[in-house]
Amino acid sequence: MKRLLDDQSLRAFARGCAVLGAGGGGDTYVGLLQALQAIEDFGPVPLVDLDELPDDSLLMPCGGIGAPTVSFEKIENGDEGGRLRDRLEAITGRRVAALMAGEIGGGNGLRPITWAARMGLPLADADGMGRAFPETFQVTMHLAGISPNPAVMTDERGNLAVFQTVSGEWMERLERAVAVEFGNAASSTEYTLTAAQAREATVRNSVSLAIRIGEAISDAHGSPVDALVAEVDGHRLIAGKIVDAERRTTRGFVRGSVVIEGLGTDAGRLLRLELQNENLVALERGQVLASVPDLISVVDSETAEAIQTERISYGQRVTVIAFACDPVWRTAKGVALTGPRAFGYDFDYTPVEELADARD
Amino acid sequence: MKRLLDDQSLRAFARGCAVLGAGGGGDTYVGLLQALQAIEDFGPVPLVDLDELPDDSLLMPCGGIGAPTVSFEKIENGDEGGRLRDRLEAITGRRVAALMAGEIGGGNGLRPITWAARMGLPLADADGMGRAFPETFQVTMHLAGISPNPAVMTDERGNLAVFQTVSGEWMERLERAVAVEFGNAASSTEYTLTAAQAREATVRNSVSLAIRIGEAISDAHGSPVDALVAEVDGHRLIAGKIVDAERRTTRGFVRGSVVIEGLGTDAGRLLRLELQNENLVALERGQVLASVPDLISVVDSETAEAIQTERISYGQRVTVIAFACDPVWRTAKGVALTGPRAFGYDFDYTPVEELADARD
Repeated sequence: MKRLLDDQSLRAFARGCAVLGAGGGGDTYVGLLQALQAIEDFGPVPLVDLDELPDDSLLMPCGGIGAPTVSFEKIENGDEGGRLRDRLEAITGRRVAALMAGEIGGGNGLRPITWAARMGLPLADADGMGRAFPETFQVTMHLAGISPNPAVMTDERGNLAVFQTVSGEWMERLERAVAVEFGNAASSTEYTLTAAQAREATVRNSVSLAIRIGEAISDAHGSPVDALVAEVDGHRLIAGKIVDAERRTTRGFVRGSVVIEGLGTDAGRLLRLELQNENLVALERGQVLASVPDLISVVDSETAEAIQTERISYGQRVTVIAFACDPVWRTAKGVALTGPRAFGYDFDYTPVEELADARD
Repeated sequence: MKRLLDDQSLRAFARGCAVLGAGGGGDTYVGLLQALQAIEDFGPVPLVDLDELPDDSLLMPCGGIGAPTVSFEKIENGDEGGRLRDRLEAITGRRVAALMAGEIGGGNGLRPITWAARMGLPLADADGMGRAFPETFQVTMHLAGISPNPAVMTDERGNLAVFQTVSGEWMERLERAVAVEFGNAASSTEYTLTAAQAREATVRNSVSLAIRIGEAISDAHGSPVDALVAEVDGHRLIAGKIVDAERRTTRGFVRGSVVIEGLGTDAGRLLRLELQNENLVALERGQVLASVPDLISVVDSETAEAIQTERISYGQRVTVIAFACDPVWRTAKGVALTGPRAFGYDFDYTPVEELADARD
């Protein structure tokens, strides 16, 4: 066991998940309250390294699927994870040994902790994205050729759906349609895998990374934003205030844009973020400053707390930072699955540090 | 065994299913061609009475779910029934003894025959509606308190979805959403039941009834419409021509209306049918002539062949007939589930024969 996820580490973890959410992944405030309650009721959750788990032990990647705008209004009842686990075990005939976040970003990083506490299971120090992405098949397991089947979904009412699809893309279509019926927020598991597979097919140590990011912010001497930028080796795109935020919750996603007007040394500049659940692209006068799969996060200029899409509002003083995604997303297959063209943009991906160098 | 469903009986059966479809249930032309091919390839299908089956033998109610307008463009590949059966048997741990139409009306009456032929299984002489209704929970099994769980859905690509829901209404919502993703046409089974349950919870002998209706039309001496009206104890609402047909395929259903202008002795009259997959209400000058759950069918004035919603077009010479539904739909629970108010109309159900008497 690497450590126990207790009250203090969960607060740091939630901060880090919000940064890694790149705007999405669901609300961390609600997620943190749920996780804190769960460990108060059931005790802290052991965080385990994938190397500690026997090769054939079964991991259940899990989290929420839906629109982040809904994630802080429509709240789970806590039984969802248990239902997912029970059904997955019934289908596979095997015991789940540990939970894993499907995506570490946003509330989806926290949700498996709530469930793990209630089940008495450990959490694996890994996830399928190293950030958040809008679509369920945008995971490292998909890149590694692991089957999404069987997928299980449930809601707070007790409805259950099991999918066996011909592709990850079909899984996404069907899960999204059912998530919309459930009210744009649901819980799910897909891409079940063994610990041996996970060692090759996940972003490892991402729980530890999120805690480290959170601690860098809370323990900062001087500017928390400086500490955050140093921790993630990030790039400041702009410091300013939110002057426009447009969000539509449609077809199971949030889509829209956010405009930041520069202040201080950035006065006179305008930065535009385009989003589908997550911040996809940062644009200034038609020039791309950063894009998926790299991470673009909006943080409070004073506290460096990440402000997720659903909580962005006019007048907030923010700094937009961008930093490198996990290297797996920069491979040809990774860029094909999660780069700008995967989201309908007509330009090629350039790493954020190259874009920054070109501007200097 | 009551009889073998062979080439000749299937042609009569398809005619009867079209009449019992009340405009919906899916295209019978495509369904008949598929069933004829299946019995040519695999031999005729035995039709069995529920009394012939052991009490605990498992029936699989099955058919298509979607919008009838799509049913004659997007065609199954034939493997769907086998996939439904395999998954249902895996979940329940029991063998399926016979298939049963979820709804006898339209192509959904024929689809189980195609599948039964391919599987070498008999067809039960019963169904869950005695007609067609748009929603999956509008079945006699629902009235009888039988669980819709587990439901299984599949498409021609090989995707599979299994649902375990908290109510029939939730089942409908989730199945409809997935059917829309599949392209507005999918195959499904729900409300699995034993032969003992089916004896109390289905419309019995509806396959035989459909064959009898078809034979009455094809064997008519004199007017086929007269023979049909006599066979179903029906009421002629109007004879005329189609002057307007409006159909929108939306949210998994066809909705719209059809207007018939009277000819001959009906000259000067206008009849309006409102529909959601099936013909729901027949109106003349704001007066209701017939409504769900009674059956309203549009038939060719010369041949008495029923013209389903998706094939209605301007200028067709038609006779609209209405006749009594199965008595189970006239109970308080039956009317609540399938009467005019269940479809959003603000009037109470009156049996078609009472409406006819009141006009005389």
